[in-house]
Amino acid sequence: MDKLIKKIIEKNNPTVVGLDPNLDFIPQSIKRKHFDEDGCTLKAASKAIFDFNKEIIDAVADIVPAIKPQLAYYEMFGHNGITAFERTVKYAQLKGLYVIADGKRNDIGTTMEAYATAFLGKIKISDLSTEIFGTDALTVNGYLGTDGILPLLKLCKEYNKSIFVLVKTSNKSSGELQDLCIDNIPVYAKMGDMCEQWGADTIGEYSYSKVGAVVGATYPEQLTELRKRLPHTFFLVPGYGAQGGGAEGIRGAFDKNGLGAIVNSSRAIMCAYKAQNRPIDDFAECARIEAINMRDSLMGNR
Amino acid sequence: MDKLIKKIIEKNNPTVVGLDPNLDFIPQSIKRKHFDEDGCTLKAASKAIFDFNKEIIDAVADIVPAIKPQLAYYEMFGHNGITAFERTVKYAQLKGLYVIADGKRNDIGTTMEAYATAFLGKIKISDLSTEIFGTDALTVNGYLGTDGILPLLKLCKEYNKSIFVLVKTSNKSSGELQDLCIDNIPVYAKMGDMCEQWGADTIGEYSYSKVGAVVGATYPEQLTELRKRLPHTFFLVPGYGAQGGGAEGIRGAFDKNGLGAIVNSSRAIMCAYKAQNRPIDDFAECARIEAINMRDSLMGNR
Repeated sequence: MDKLIKKIIEKNNPTVVGLDPNLDFIPQSIKRKHFDEDGCTLKAASKAIFDFNKEIIDAVADIVPAIKPQLAYYEMFGHNGITAFERTVKYAQLKGLYVIADGKRNDIGTTMEAYATAFLGKIKISDLSTEIFGTDALTVNGYLGTDGILPLLKLCKEYNKSIFVLVKTSNKSSGELQDLCIDNIPVYAKMGDMCEQWGADTIGEYSYSKVGAVVGATYPEQLTELRKRLPHTFFLVPGYGAQGGGAEGIRGAFDKNGLGAIVNSSRAIMCAYKAQNRPIDDFAECARIEAINMRDSLMGNR
Repeated sequence: MDKLIKKIIEKNNPTVVGLDPNLDFIPQSIKRKHFDEDGCTLKAASKAIFDFNKEIIDAVADIVPAIKPQLAYYEMFGHNGITAFERTVKYAQLKGLYVIADGKRNDIGTTMEAYATAFLGKIKISDLSTEIFGTDALTVNGYLGTDGILPLLKLCKEYNKSIFVLVKTSNKSSGELQDLCIDNIPVYAKMGDMCEQWGADTIGEYSYSKVGAVVGATYPEQLTELRKRLPHTFFLVPGYGAQGGGAEGIRGAFDKNGLGAIVNSSRAIMCAYKAQNRPIDDFAECARIEAINMRDSLMGNR
């Protein structure tokens, strides 16, 4: 997690930009170019998505430390979409950004090893040893327990990567399971405790381990409670802005040094032109303005 | 779920073949062909994987009703691997097989809609409306609650598809979270109850809904308990064979009509040549023998 924290300190900004692209967010000028070249195809759509991502990355790379592409929006275009995901990851890293793959993957044994290899490790094919997605971190779901986490931890240690485990998610129905209490301890706190255990032997120079947690901005009380309960677990905080969590409520996510969390914003940055009443062609410039506003708002509330 | 159940009745076999390919399982003859053509590349590896899958499918298509490719083993080869997944799905469906995508996907809102679109629905790009993966069912993780399930249900109804929600997984550490009790009811039973609710208005002609559950063969008691507790929830049962669950222990998964569950076997079928002490080049023939043995063993224990 040190690598991410260093970038947060360097940019003085605990924001991650969620890259959840949708064709509706992309200007006609970009789409037309690719539809003219490749027809109305998944390949053309995927190329348009990459170009859109690239412009957003160019616009925010000196402002934010990290991006978080959400796999679903790439899988939605099949293998062409995965190509757009791969290109996005590489381009962002070239620009010095930390990349969190938001895949919420989960499985056990050799299957989890395969996911870990895909996102955090290297594959060996005869003489070839190569990264696949090469992302710096992966979000995962811990419902299957330790068996699902150990294969990830192994590669986190080997390749200096991290994971973020879903603990208390930002959505309205997250409490249906996560708030149920076992001897007065809610499921999300149990999951948080497991994160502390899983990460225990990977604590870095800022006192955070390689096992982070996803905790939603929409539940400020739980955010504050979990920050105290999980001193070695770095938080990835979704639900800021569009989902209703504000900068004020997020204060509890940070430790006394102003570290301990990175806050995600996806649509508010990708579609900033809407809130700013600007034409869609100005999306990148508007994204930059919103990224700066978000940084200043968060820094004022840490 | 009717579509799957009809195929089970037709083949008189409640087995699904897990296609979790690994280069080590594939004969040199297949790999050499592609490595000679495309070099030592992810593309060559992915083509070898498809050829392997194709031979397995050809060998078992008249014996089993369904296959279950596990996404991790395809993602491990990047976008080329996803191409192999796409080709595998299409080929299996051409052979009349029901295809369960084992992705254990989970998210909320528009992100879950994107996953649902990718696996169960159709995407619209300008004039084009096309299936992406076109699978018949998807495994999902319900940790995020109803918000993560509704987008799937919508497409299940629209396109006559199904989902399987992780309830009690087959691995050793599944109990760390899933066995914790809330007022004497374990988390896995709570999750099972949610499956019954989510599926309530999609019950088909065999009294099962479009929302199934994943329940491991390695926990026969819970399997029996959950079969009684969840009368409208069809089970996908992993952990048979390689993971230690036997045909005897699986009896509790079935209802009085011998329906109610489909049992997965991955490695025991893909690598049947090992147990049969036959050369790797006979893998397809050995897979067929094992598929027949498994069918007979399960049918004798329903």
